[in-house]
Amino acid sequence: MVERPHSGLPGKIFACLSVLFVTITAVTLSISTMPALREEEDKGTCSRRCYNIFIVETVCVAWFSLEFSLRFIQDRSKLSFLRQPLNLIDLVAILPYYISLLVDTSQGSAGSGNSYLDKVGLVLRVLRALRILYVMRLARHSLGLQTLGLTARRCTREFGLLLLFLCVAIALYSPLLFLIENEMATAQEFSSVPATYWWAVITMTTVGYGDMVPRSLPGQVVALSSILSGILLMAFPVTSIFHTFSRSYVELKQEQQRALQRRARFLLRGRINELGSELSLESDALFDIRR
Amino acid sequence: MVERPHSGLPGKIFACLSVLFVTITAVTLSISTMPALREEEDKGTCSRRCYNIFIVETVCVAWFSLEFSLRFIQDRSKLSFLRQPLNLIDLVAILPYYISLLVDTSQGSAGSGNSYLDKVGLVLRVLRALRILYVMRLARHSLGLQTLGLTARRCTREFGLLLLFLCVAIALYSPLLFLIENEMATAQEFSSVPATYWWAVITMTTVGYGDMVPRSLPGQVVALSSILSGILLMAFPVTSIFHTFSRSYVELKQEQQRALQRRARFLLRGRINELGSELSLESDALFDIRR
Amino acid sequence: MVERPHSGLPGKIFACLSVLFVTITAVTLSISTMPALREEEDKGTCSRRCYNIFIVETVCVAWFSLEFSLRFIQDRSKLSFLRQPLNLIDLVAILPYYISLLVDTSQGSAGSGNSYLDKVGLVLRVLRALRILYVMRLARHSLGLQTLGLTARRCTREFGLLLLFLCVAIALYSPLLFLIENEMATAQEFSSVPATYWWAVITMTTVGYGDMVPRSLPGQVVALSSILSGILLMAFPVTSIFHTFSRSYVELKQEQQRALQRRARFLLRGRINELGSELSLESDALFDIRR
Amino acid sequence: MVERPHSGLPGKIFACLSVLFVTITAVTLSISTMPALREEEDKGTCSRRCYNIFIVETVCVAWFSLEFSLRFIQDRSKLSFLRQPLNLIDLVAILPYYISLLVDTSQGSAGSGNSYLDKVGLVLRVLRALRILYVMRLARHSLGLQTLGLTARRCTREFGLLLLFLCVAIALYSPLLFLIENEMATAQEFSSVPATYWWAVITMTTVGYGDMVPRSLPGQVVALSSILSGILLMAFPVTSIFHTFSRSYVELKQEQQRALQRRARFLLRGRINELGSELSLESDALFDIRR
Repeated sequence: MVERPHSGLPGKIFACLSVLFVTITAVTLSISTMPALREEEDKGTCSRRCYNIFIVETVCVAWFSLEFSLRFIQDRSKLSFLRQPLNLIDLVAILPYYISLLVDTSQGSAGSGNSYLDKVGLVLRVLRALRILYVMRLARHSLGLQTLGLTARRCTREFGLLLLFLCVAIALYSPLLFLIENEMATAQEFSSVPATYWWAVITMTTVGYGDMVPRSLPGQVVALSSILSGILLMAFPVTSIFHTFSRSYVELKQEQQRALQRRARFLLRGRINELGSELSLESDALFDIRR
Repeated sequence: MVERPHSGLPGKIFACLSVLFVTITAVTLSISTMPALREEEDKGTCSRRCYNIFIVETVCVAWFSLEFSLRFIQDRSKLSFLRQPLNLIDLVAILPYYISLLVDTSQGSAGSGNSYLDKVGLVLRVLRALRILYVMRLARHSLGLQTLGLTARRCTREFGLLLLFLCVAIALYSPLLFLIENEMATAQEFSSVPATYWWAVITMTTVGYGDMVPRSLPGQVVALSSILSGILLMAFPVTSIFHTFSRSYVELKQEQQRALQRRARFLLRGRINELGSELSLESDALFDIRR
Repeated sequence: MVERPHSGLPGKIFACLSVLFVTITAVTLSISTMPALREEEDKGTCSRRCYNIFIVETVCVAWFSLEFSLRFIQDRSKLSFLRQPLNLIDLVAILPYYISLLVDTSQGSAGSGNSYLDKVGLVLRVLRALRILYVMRLARHSLGLQTLGLTARRCTREFGLLLLFLCVAIALYSPLLFLIENEMATAQEFSSVPATYWWAVITMTTVGYGDMVPRSLPGQVVALSSILSGILLMAFPVTSIFHTFSRSYVELKQEQQRALQRRARFLLRGRINELGSELSLESDALFDIRR
Repeated sequence: MVERPHSGLPGKIFACLSVLFVTITAVTLSISTMPALREEEDKGTCSRRCYNIFIVETVCVAWFSLEFSLRFIQDRSKLSFLRQPLNLIDLVAILPYYISLLVDTSQGSAGSGNSYLDKVGLVLRVLRALRILYVMRLARHSLGLQTLGLTARRCTREFGLLLLFLCVAIALYSPLLFLIENEMATAQEFSSVPATYWWAVITMTTVGYGDMVPRSLPGQVVALSSILSGILLMAFPVTSIFHTFSRSYVELKQEQQRALQRRARFLLRGRINELGSELSLESDALFDIRR
């Protein structure tokens, strides 16, 4: 029941609850970083609002722990269960809560120095942010997200090509623009080649924040050619990735329908067998009677 | 005649008038928010220009009310008429004018407090802005807009997928970038995770306003990956939405032509029947004469 | 020769010269607006550099006038010649130079007031900028630009649809965002609905200058939906415009090749006829001799 | 072995080393422009870190020189070797290091003036930046980059069309916007037509830095039309470039596989010949024995 969310009414309720808890987790995580709440946290005091958030978090984690352990117990092969990427992500998302609880308790007893506390605080914040990985859990319930995962696995070659094209173009244009802007323009926005990499990324993807803008004429010509090549380069592998995505979507849909049919047939056969055995029992009974 | 704008000359004149009044409404609404006119409104005085706008508004609303009531009267089933989304939108766009007239009259008599007046003012402004929904009325006269509506109804699944992809990506990247930027960069543009959501939206759609820009190197790497995944994610469902749009357009066009042909055939048959009855009358007359 | 730039070596030289003069015109027009030169113009003094630009301009206009009058004389039907859009554009681009010459001369004699001079200056600047229309003349020599023109004429429906979609979306989103931002945000960037139209255009086309940015949360939600609908709306008619473009390109190419073949065949037939007549002359001669 | 990186284990190790050295070169070039290191360079002192970078550079250049000379020696026709564009790029990337070494040595002996030193410094910096051309060497090892090169060679017509469209549109819109903004708006961001060219490029490619924004209403209308035409114009030739890219990719892949098969067949035939000669030897031996 826990593994197959498409099986009947209880499975559907289970799926809805799961999606609901994921949404709640994402929302509480967002709210807990609002400036007002962060200030309270820094002071060490915890108002009622902050306390409520903690309770909601605990309920969510409890639910996810329950679901995870249920699935772990139901699965026959424990090793292959832990090897599935989605289960590993679940584990990485659940554990931080317990670790941070442990650290909080131990921190209360030990009176450590300030720099140590800072580091622990950073680790805790990172661990708490890991909770957002619960969002990946939605992939269990959405065919679209599963298709995305399948596409990502099938198109590693194309993604690699896309990154390679982008890296080569960035590596070629950035030093050129850096040199031109530093020799010709007065404003020194392009402080180093790595900083120019950022400009190249933002320009070639046509995002264009405008925090770094070439001012000299040759720099603007280089910018034009980098924009054009960026548009072309980005678009090359994208087309083939699209085709893979739509093919994968159709495949996954057919597979799901076939699984549903197989299930339905299995149930039907079971019913027929039951009917058959009942019939044979009845015929036996009749035979007994006749005799 | 009011329902079918494709029927002969009067229908065409009617459609043109309707489009004209929609345009006038949109223009007057825009002009009425210009700073100069808003100041006059705040003072309570109403110059000649402001008065003219009021008259134009009244004429437009009168026209739309007339058209709506005509269509309401002509329709046989009053219930199914009110169930059509386009008619409901018409109602929502027409009513505010009368409500605001009522409120204005009642406000003149009652001398209420300031905070109450503020709230009434807000409601009035919202109601007046609702008039812009008249623009939806253009859908009656444009095949393209009808196709858009049909596509939206058929592609709810794809639109949902698009939103889901975007939400998951935003939910994954925002806390990551928020954490990195707050730990590493000095400038605190990324004040909270919800604020970072806005950054993620603007970046992944390649709009790139530039009001929030990651400054640290790891933040920029996260930004690069979020841009790339944004471009890919946005493009996945778009392709299938396109196909649905062009298919729907062709379908609607054929349907319209078939409706026109049916209408023409109906008129022809009516004419033939008339001719037939005339002929029979004539033959009867002949028969009478012969006898 | 002047009309058909594909005919032999002189036609090619003519075409190259024409393209060269167009480029020179565009460059001189750009240079003449550089701040250094504009200052000189404002003072009324004219340095050597400014004088050189004037000479280059005169040469270009002389060339274009010559070409235009040659084509005008060669064409049989003068009326249909003036009806072609490309010829009209040529006329609009050539005339301003002569008009500005006339005005300059008359201005020198008449001592008018300041406000009159300002208006004349504005008209002159507009007329001088019209010279840029020479660039359209490149369409005579590039198949790609001709295809563009043909596509524009064939896709008026799609362009209209694109504009209609954009206008409706802008008209719907702008008042909404204007209302939200003025009620909720402190910064008053969105001063009126027409100003918000500009924001909607820049956002829906994913340009994103960043001069107007919604600050409130509901405003940002509206912005997200406007971006998404912008991306989708822009893309709908674009697909069909593409198809028309590539089809038109193939058609024009075939037509051009057919014209070349017809020309070649015509020349060949002419040669054969000549040969034939020579043969018949020779045979006549032979016959004469035999007799 | 040096020419064919697909031949067995040594070829693969060689290819990996080559890619590694290219990456190291790109990274050291980026690091050497960081502000901290540039300051040291300006002072003339060279810390340990700067010294390490020099050593890494030397090792990389030594490796590339070795590889280049090996390939030069192996190739039969020296002239055709130097004619290949990839080899020329290698040469241009390797030479600067030796030239800068020479200049450094000669500069140490000669006590020249300041302006001369400045020029030499500029030339040296340009030469050092040329090292980034090593990145092109990755094309030897990536099918994707080779496809890119082939596409670029096949689509010169389309690239030309893209540039022509862009240039014509820029040349038409820029003077128009320049005139409008200078007559109507108070802020003078659009100082000259060439500066407006930059605005047109950034706007029509939907990058939108936001450093130049039209403020007047007519200017914004021109901006809207330039954005729309930019999106359409950019997209026209892109579609056909895509098709060429995917076709070229398939072709190159088939060619590579055929080359591998031919190689395998060649090796097999060699083995068969060897076996055959061994057999004949053995049969000869048998014959000798029998006799």
